[in-house]
Amino acid sequence: MDEFHVYDTTLRDGAQREGITYSVADKLAVARLLDELGVGFIEGGWPGALPKDTEFFERARTELELSTAQLVAFGATRKAGVAVADDPQVQALLDSGAPVICLVAKSDVRHVEQALRTTREENLAMVADTVRHLVAADRRVFVDCEHFFDGFRYDADYAVAVMQAAYDAGASVVVMCDTNGGMLPTGIQRVVREVRARVDGRLGIHCQDDTGCAVANTLTAVEEGVTHVQCTANGYGERTGNADLFGVLGGLVAKLDMPVLPEGRFAEMQRISHALAEIANLSPNTHQPYVGASSFAHKAGLHASAIKVAPELYNHMDPADVGNDMRILVTEMAGRASVELKGRELGVDIASDPAAVARVVEIVKSREAEGWSYEAADASFELLLRSEVEPDRHAPFDLESYRVIVEHRADGEVVSEATVKVIVDGRRVIATAEGNGPVNALDQALRQAVTEHYPQLRDVELADYKVRILEGRHGTDATTRVLIGSTDGDRGWTTVGVHPNVVESSWKALVDGVSYGLLKRRELAANRPAE
Amino acid sequence: MDEFHVYDTTLRDGAQREGITYSVADKLAVARLLDELGVGFIEGGWPGALPKDTEFFERARTELELSTAQLVAFGATRKAGVAVADDPQVQALLDSGAPVICLVAKSDVRHVEQALRTTREENLAMVADTVRHLVAADRRVFVDCEHFFDGFRYDADYAVAVMQAAYDAGASVVVMCDTNGGMLPTGIQRVVREVRARVDGRLGIHCQDDTGCAVANTLTAVEEGVTHVQCTANGYGERTGNADLFGVLGGLVAKLDMPVLPEGRFAEMQRISHALAEIANLSPNTHQPYVGASSFAHKAGLHASAIKVAPELYNHMDPADVGNDMRILVTEMAGRASVELKGRELGVDIASDPAAVARVVEIVKSREAEGWSYEAADASFELLLRSEVEPDRHAPFDLESYRVIVEHRADGEVVSEATVKVIVDGRRVIATAEGNGPVNALDQALRQAVTEHYPQLRDVELADYKVRILEGRHGTDATTRVLIGSTDGDRGWTTVGVHPNVVESSWKALVDGVSYGLLKRRELAANRPAE
Repeated sequence: MDEFHVYDTTLRDGAQREGITYSVADKLAVARLLDELGVGFIEGGWPGALPKDTEFFERARTELELSTAQLVAFGATRKAGVAVADDPQVQALLDSGAPVICLVAKSDVRHVEQALRTTREENLAMVADTVRHLVAADRRVFVDCEHFFDGFRYDADYAVAVMQAAYDAGASVVVMCDTNGGMLPTGIQRVVREVRARVDGRLGIHCQDDTGCAVANTLTAVEEGVTHVQCTANGYGERTGNADLFGVLGGLVAKLDMPVLPEGRFAEMQRISHALAEIANLSPNTHQPYVGASSFAHKAGLHASAIKVAPELYNHMDPADVGNDMRILVTEMAGRASVELKGRELGVDIASDPAAVARVVEIVKSREAEGWSYEAADASFELLLRSEVEPDRHAPFDLESYRVIVEHRADGEVVSEATVKVIVDGRRVIATAEGNGPVNALDQALRQAVTEHYPQLRDVELADYKVRILEGRHGTDATTRVLIGSTDGDRGWTTVGVHPNVVESSWKALVDGVSYGLLKRRELAANRPAE
Repeated sequence: MDEFHVYDTTLRDGAQREGITYSVADKLAVARLLDELGVGFIEGGWPGALPKDTEFFERARTELELSTAQLVAFGATRKAGVAVADDPQVQALLDSGAPVICLVAKSDVRHVEQALRTTREENLAMVADTVRHLVAADRRVFVDCEHFFDGFRYDADYAVAVMQAAYDAGASVVVMCDTNGGMLPTGIQRVVREVRARVDGRLGIHCQDDTGCAVANTLTAVEEGVTHVQCTANGYGERTGNADLFGVLGGLVAKLDMPVLPEGRFAEMQRISHALAEIANLSPNTHQPYVGASSFAHKAGLHASAIKVAPELYNHMDPADVGNDMRILVTEMAGRASVELKGRELGVDIASDPAAVARVVEIVKSREAEGWSYEAADASFELLLRSEVEPDRHAPFDLESYRVIVEHRADGEVVSEATVKVIVDGRRVIATAEGNGPVNALDQALRQAVTEHYPQLRDVELADYKVRILEGRHGTDATTRVLIGSTDGDRGWTTVGVHPNVVESSWKALVDGVSYGLLKRRELAANRPAE
């Protein structure tokens, strides 16, 4: 699919983000995921300039098998005053073995003179020589015109001369880069129109997000005839980041009707976006367009019944198209309809029991008034639904008491210790454990007390912990809401607890977390075919 | 400044964001900050529909003094088939006392028929009646046309008829809402042009961010002649959120050269954005356009010297314009100047002691790497500065040890008890106190131990308590950062503590809070004229 280039630069420009440090193994994993998504080009790094990138290209030859994508090596034009054949940085690009090379070139004459400290003419020669040299070595060459939009505003003739030098030497795409990220879509529209009137070659776009318009700028450029877009996964990049690959793909495929990905890959967007966040060791952005966990979530309230009848009136697209789901959040405005809808989503048949629906609505209302929030705690809500639908279901254990001690000792050591006394299946169990803090100690003690009876809980562990103080005016005597994320390795769930005492809030959320884990493990076991 | 409306809906539409729950006190604090920023309109909520919002408008009458902004009550047009004078929801809008009312109206005929379940004609009458009724009661009325862009695409004549009904009845602005957030800038451009050719009245824009283009869409609409923009602080809102107020202001002021804020307020953007994030209990987005901590940060590398010589070539604007700073991530140069600057701001002469400045830079760097954040904790920072400038100054008390016990007893009662052992002025004091939770108990015990010696602490109390879990991936064994707000009735201050154990983090912040209170009380006493 050469008519339109989806070009990813997560591994080079994305890695500029404060806090991201990819290992070579990470880079290989990122490249595999991008190839699964079906992008056309993966810029792997700058061989020769960064040892890690040199190694990446070396290992890619044997360890990376790409199906749709081509690997791109990024580099600069030759040094001023040096013959291209004698420039080791240019030689490293050839040595990388990448079939495609993307060269960065200066197109703002002020950068030529003040940063490169060379002449306008020499810069043009550097572009022409380097492109010609690489094309002669059978590489496909793209040229990134750095600071293009600022340069064009300052001296359009020179910016166009750089582009023309690249095309004349054999570059197949020249990319207009908004390196400082200061453009708005209307400015992009104007400049792309002017440029298209002045050059004939294929144009690309590369936008930084300093005005918050990188996705919009990229899409606007495409609407003006640009056929090569440079993006990074989840918008990772220096400062405010780059144009988000998933936002751009969402716009191209769902809004501009351009099927730029291979068949079936659009629906992999959410999975791949989250996997790439994992590798970067960043939490997925829950509010990210198209792929965020909250991006099709509705606080149902007044509209719940209408959403049930005609979801297409309330979503800008079908979330399933990008592998996402619509979620109905249970909030203080919740009514019967949203409880029924949520029950259906969770696979609990509550709609057939109107009295149970009414009880759940009442409980949710009064609890939310106390500060509970079920919208981010589906697992606690499912436990609540089930306890009303199946009132005979009994809890997996009952608490008799617990005690937590935190001590800052005279020697400076800080220690936490918890003791829990619970009744498990009629038997009284006492367990004591230490932890890094009061909640960790409580969690350890609870697990110790119940895992002998419920060995399936061994895989369940605490993954996330959040505290929110409600009505902060009263200081520490305010109510605290705790959200706990648990995981069994395969899936994760969130539970909630509210109480004036943060330890008790945490206890409630912990108990729900463990109970839910047990419920799901049992369902799994029940559904497993007999051998 | 009525020529251009900066309209904020953080308190209504922003509060739809998953995870945000504002108390009435929070809402008042948000409104004050928005007024400081200089927005023209603050939408406070939906009185009558939500009890909390009704209370907000009640308390606003006595507790909220606005300098530039007008308060807006949000509500719906009258119910179908009900006389407007008999509709309690409409009456509640009048009862709120807000001088401006923003009505939501259906402009997509499918929503009229399928969600409202009424006729096209009745919907037009509902708009006209409600606007006329409120205008007759001397209110200024804006009308939000919900799902406008989808409605316009489906049946442009009907969408325009709704607008016209609003204008004819006396609405001063009709707002085109991209409620599902599916638009791109070029689509906005086309539709706004068509609409302007068909209606005469003043137009507003309200964009959701489902395509990642809300800021771009808003700015594009302004370039097409729209003079009223609806935004939310930091883009908070349902699903992917709304157009970010700070992104839109950045574009208007810095890019489109429209000075829509009062003199000097643009430079308050970063401070106010971060303060609003604190109230929402969300981490500020470090990569947010204009106001993010990383948004002018350069991984210097190759360009370091060029950036130093000509920063304007590498930044899309001067970061100081929005109260932000350029940061060079690899050098440590940033620190010294800002410590000196901060010292001057706090009235601590540290600039004359270069060695102390260097020590503070080192301490801040290593602490911030551990998760400390002095940005929101001026009092802790001042204590740190003073301890380096006046090394002989001794702490008001020294801790020997503390112990906190939280028990959930067999009878269901949850109790917290703390014992502290401190050395005050050479004397060992032991105090024990109970509290609603572990931190409250600790706070009570500490005060009990020290107020006999320092009676001036009687007026100092804890006013706010916030916990943030850092590196949440590790669950409860993550590091916790506690921010504590204290007050002496006249002024407030914030202190910070960081430790893996939340009780120890709280202790550190409590100790700073008490120490700072004592310091200020002493300064006050020293400066009081002798009688």
